[in-house]
Amino acid sequence: MKTLPSYATFFRVLTLGALLTLGMHAQAQSDPLPSWNDGAAKQAIIAFVKDTTTQGSPKFVPQPERIAAFDQDGTLWVEHPVYSFVMYALEQVPALVKAKPELAKVAPFSTVLEILKGDHAAVAKLTMPDLEKILAVTYTGRSVDQFNAEVTKWMAEAKDPRWKRPYTELTYLPMQEVLKYLRANGFKTYIVTGGGQDFVRTYSEKVYGIPPEQVVGTAGVVKYSYAKDGKPFLFKEPKLLLNDDFTGKPEGIHLMIGRRPIMAAGNSGGDRQMLEYTNSGDGARLSMLVLHDDAKREYAYGPAKGLPTTKVGTFTQALYDEATKKDWIVVSMKDDWKKIFAFE
Amino acid sequence: MKTLPSYATFFRVLTLGALLTLGMHAQAQSDPLPSWNDGAAKQAIIAFVKDTTTQGSPKFVPQPERIAAFDQDGTLWVEHPVYSFVMYALEQVPALVKAKPELAKVAPFSTVLEILKGDHAAVAKLTMPDLEKILAVTYTGRSVDQFNAEVTKWMAEAKDPRWKRPYTELTYLPMQEVLKYLRANGFKTYIVTGGGQDFVRTYSEKVYGIPPEQVVGTAGVVKYSYAKDGKPFLFKEPKLLLNDDFTGKPEGIHLMIGRRPIMAAGNSGGDRQMLEYTNSGDGARLSMLVLHDDAKREYAYGPAKGLPTTKVGTFTQALYDEATKKDWIVVSMKDDWKKIFAFE
Repeated sequence: MKTLPSYATFFRVLTLGALLTLGMHAQAQSDPLPSWNDGAAKQAIIAFVKDTTTQGSPKFVPQPERIAAFDQDGTLWVEHPVYSFVMYALEQVPALVKAKPELAKVAPFSTVLEILKGDHAAVAKLTMPDLEKILAVTYTGRSVDQFNAEVTKWMAEAKDPRWKRPYTELTYLPMQEVLKYLRANGFKTYIVTGGGQDFVRTYSEKVYGIPPEQVVGTAGVVKYSYAKDGKPFLFKEPKLLLNDDFTGKPEGIHLMIGRRPIMAAGNSGGDRQMLEYTNSGDGARLSMLVLHDDAKREYAYGPAKGLPTTKVGTFTQALYDEATKKDWIVVSMKDDWKKIFAFE
Repeated sequence: MKTLPSYATFFRVLTLGALLTLGMHAQAQSDPLPSWNDGAAKQAIIAFVKDTTTQGSPKFVPQPERIAAFDQDGTLWVEHPVYSFVMYALEQVPALVKAKPELAKVAPFSTVLEILKGDHAAVAKLTMPDLEKILAVTYTGRSVDQFNAEVTKWMAEAKDPRWKRPYTELTYLPMQEVLKYLRANGFKTYIVTGGGQDFVRTYSEKVYGIPPEQVVGTAGVVKYSYAKDGKPFLFKEPKLLLNDDFTGKPEGIHLMIGRRPIMAAGNSGGDRQMLEYTNSGDGARLSMLVLHDDAKREYAYGPAKGLPTTKVGTFTQALYDEATKKDWIVVSMKDDWKKIFAFE
């Protein structure tokens, strides 16, 4: 009969064995980005996470500084033919007109009614001042609670015209994998969007696992007010506080986060300054741009690389050239993504 | 000889035993608020944490919604005779005057030089426009990086005139215990301060264990700019974006956090709306006000309860009466705090 090992040794051996087994098991099934094809983009993301999280690595970054910023429209979910936050505003117009019938004959509301009857892409006919007017009327002039309820209701019912699915299902599976992979490695993931901050916050936790306090977006002034019963509420004033696009992105990041991200991802000119700001810090950095070059599975637009030009999420050749020069990763939807949507 | 238990049973028994031992050990030494005297305030805090974190409790709050907001000056650290964020501005004036000698004869800079020679409390002689002018000149007109470096240097060197210690040591130990106790129970702790957001963010992590992204404060516009070498930087413009005091506190909370806190702590009229906002949500709520009634160990001011009146951190009798009526906890520094500072 063999000598019985001491309790301590026995316990140690058993625990070590269990950990090894678990470890091997995890490794065997542990491609963190299964919807990505093997290629430079996938390799760059994995190398960046390994470099910044491996203790002793020259590029190691302490956990609190692992901040990653993601644009939403066109980076985390579909933005064509129209940004969902704009679709929301347009689809509120019929109810507006029902409450105030005289609006039916007043531009730009009359134009919107025409658009809603037919081609959604016709929204490009609206001028910027038109759009601002519609956004002001549908995003402000009510309490935060009322706005949140309206958006939540719309999000549950509205459907994208092409896929006939809720907008919240049109997120890119490969990017959802990146978000999860980063968080599993101690990163704090943020959305930094030109869309409405209050709008995105209503669904960010459910859709991306990102809590409201980690959403930086275009924000208006809110005013602390009192209802007739004396209960306080926040009123959304028709006044812009932060335009979270272009230079507004790094400015918004400073306001809301107060640290420079070490990783940023976007897909258009509106993200350029965020990527530039992220990349000009010291140490390991990863900047990433999604190129929509897959007309079949999603959309194709640039005009970079000779893709069709667009007003929604423009990715110019100059931005492409800058990315190449600065070693920002350009992700080709067509080549880098094995699968685009979870429902495929 | 006894039967050898199976590996599995043996492992289970050993692990359970170890956990029980650890658990009992933890419980034996686990007063989470050792610097608090037993009393209504301490009991209310502990009851609130137990109620909101015990699964199955009717007042249970899911972890992501456990947001707690703390005023800083007078709530987490000393604010008398002058707020540290104002002391910082005043003590920058000699360097300013050295760079521009003509300022030595111009008010309010000449007044500040007089104050710095003698009684710090004489700062009360400065008018609001005077103070705003000094804050603008010392907090803006430079890059974020330069400002952060200046504040960090000052914080390392400056000393409170009464205790002859760095301001960062003048935090209230009982409140530090509350912050830690809340975090150990899944709360996210925020500072919501009338002081400068960038200012507080330079030391919040080190001093309170609160990361920069969880500091909401008075904030100015920053402008994304480029240095001569083409490197981008953020420039602090002399323009106010958020005045995080009074109604600005709930407004700032909405902007930066996007959820209503379930707990809030303050010490003066500037915190009233934050407490009111916090308390008017559904479910378990805790609102708390620190009353400075200990002239011997710290300071005594109100004018609530007949304490001396003050311009710095005013706590009126009306606020005291409102607190009593609404079951907000009023913490008496004299009676509720066994120890005020860690260095005592």
